[in-house]
Amino acid sequence: MRVRKRSGAEELLAAHPQFVVEEPQSWKGRWQEHFGNNQPIHIEIGMGKGQFINQMAQAHPEINYIGIDMQVSVVSFALDKLIDEPVRNLQLLHVDGSELTNYFAESEVDQIYLNFSDPWPKKRHEKRRLTYQSFLAVDEAILRPNGEIHFKTDNQGLFEYSLSSFSKYGMILEQVWLDLHHSPYEGNIMTEYEEKFSKKGQPIYRVEARFSDKTKK
Amino acid sequence: MRVRKRSGAEELLAAHPQFVVEEPQSWKGRWQEHFGNNQPIHIEIGMGKGQFINQMAQAHPEINYIGIDMQVSVVSFALDKLIDEPVRNLQLLHVDGSELTNYFAESEVDQIYLNFSDPWPKKRHEKRRLTYQSFLAVDEAILRPNGEIHFKTDNQGLFEYSLSSFSKYGMILEQVWLDLHHSPYEGNIMTEYEEKFSKKGQPIYRVEARFSDKTKK
Repeated sequence: MRVRKRSGAEELLAAHPQFVVEEPQSWKGRWQEHFGNNQPIHIEIGMGKGQFINQMAQAHPEINYIGIDMQVSVVSFALDKLIDEPVRNLQLLHVDGSELTNYFAESEVDQIYLNFSDPWPKKRHEKRRLTYQSFLAVDEAILRPNGEIHFKTDNQGLFEYSLSSFSKYGMILEQVWLDLHHSPYEGNIMTEYEEKFSKKGQPIYRVEARFSDKTKK
Repeated sequence: MRVRKRSGAEELLAAHPQFVVEEPQSWKGRWQEHFGNNQPIHIEIGMGKGQFINQMAQAHPEINYIGIDMQVSVVSFALDKLIDEPVRNLQLLHVDGSELTNYFAESEVDQIYLNFSDPWPKKRHEKRRLTYQSFLAVDEAILRPNGEIHFKTDNQGLFEYSLSSFSKYGMILEQVWLDLHHSPYEGNIMTEYEEKFSKKGQPIYRVEARFSDKTKK
């Protein structure tokens, strides 16, 4: 997501190592040790201001959550919430989503969330979309076998592209929602953007896509 | 599609064997011979009143089209159009879509169209949907390797189901449209139902799904 640049964001992150992990590469393969338990690890790539992952962590204390964003200002807004109210099973990472194999070992992650990722609508920017095959290869590398990506967006073009991209990569579309907010789906936790956008009445799209044995290289 | 019962429909079909193929099982493996050429064979399963397949045949004289429906009244309405104006590369079949392996040899069909199929929204009727796995197995058997199903519908629930059903069967979603009539897609030929329905402004969904080498049993 695009947010305004926030002065002092770098310093704010550095001042709160209990929430924003320092030297995350040193925890590769040891994230459960970092959390001090053996709970599953769920990550959100591109967490925006962090409302989704923060509320997920509060709703599911039996899971360890890691919110990831490459923009320091974005991470700082997610950090604000944790400073106000710490959440034991949530950590933040300020790293690039294309480099996650530096920070997570093979099969270390149990589930990946992508929410309202930047659509990069121009064809020449296809490689920047978080559902492009090179990102899927990274996701597959760190996810457990048969692990899933849960993706939602309001962007029609990105959703059309992503369904096809998942499928061409060999992933299985376990379930698809073409209007999440008017569906029987329970337990949806909204992002800041989703709350604002959905008031306009346009549909929110969602898919649960699974890496299958066939895709494993 | 549901249409009113038409008295005399059976007799009308029987009186026009040049348009409605008699004893179609006798042409299994010899459809190009039936058309008298070696053009590709495209079929529509559940053709409704036949506007789509009729206009497709006129627009693409280099392809042989076969329109299929199991309801005699429906076939009779498609027949009306051919009686008015014969189309050299279009034939009609009054048979059941679940029994197509009786009428087509392995790999004999080059492409399959499904348009606005009955959604059968109740879960207990899932097996009746034309995108259910048992129908896909029939389609795969008669389609050439890497053959495609081109499917469109206005029914959100059926489309959500079908994307997942195609994917779980191992098919590749080559391209997805979530609002066909407001997309750059060119050459769309509308069914009678599509013309009427789209005036209400709701989206038409479309997908091109391909059987891959991986699905072949």
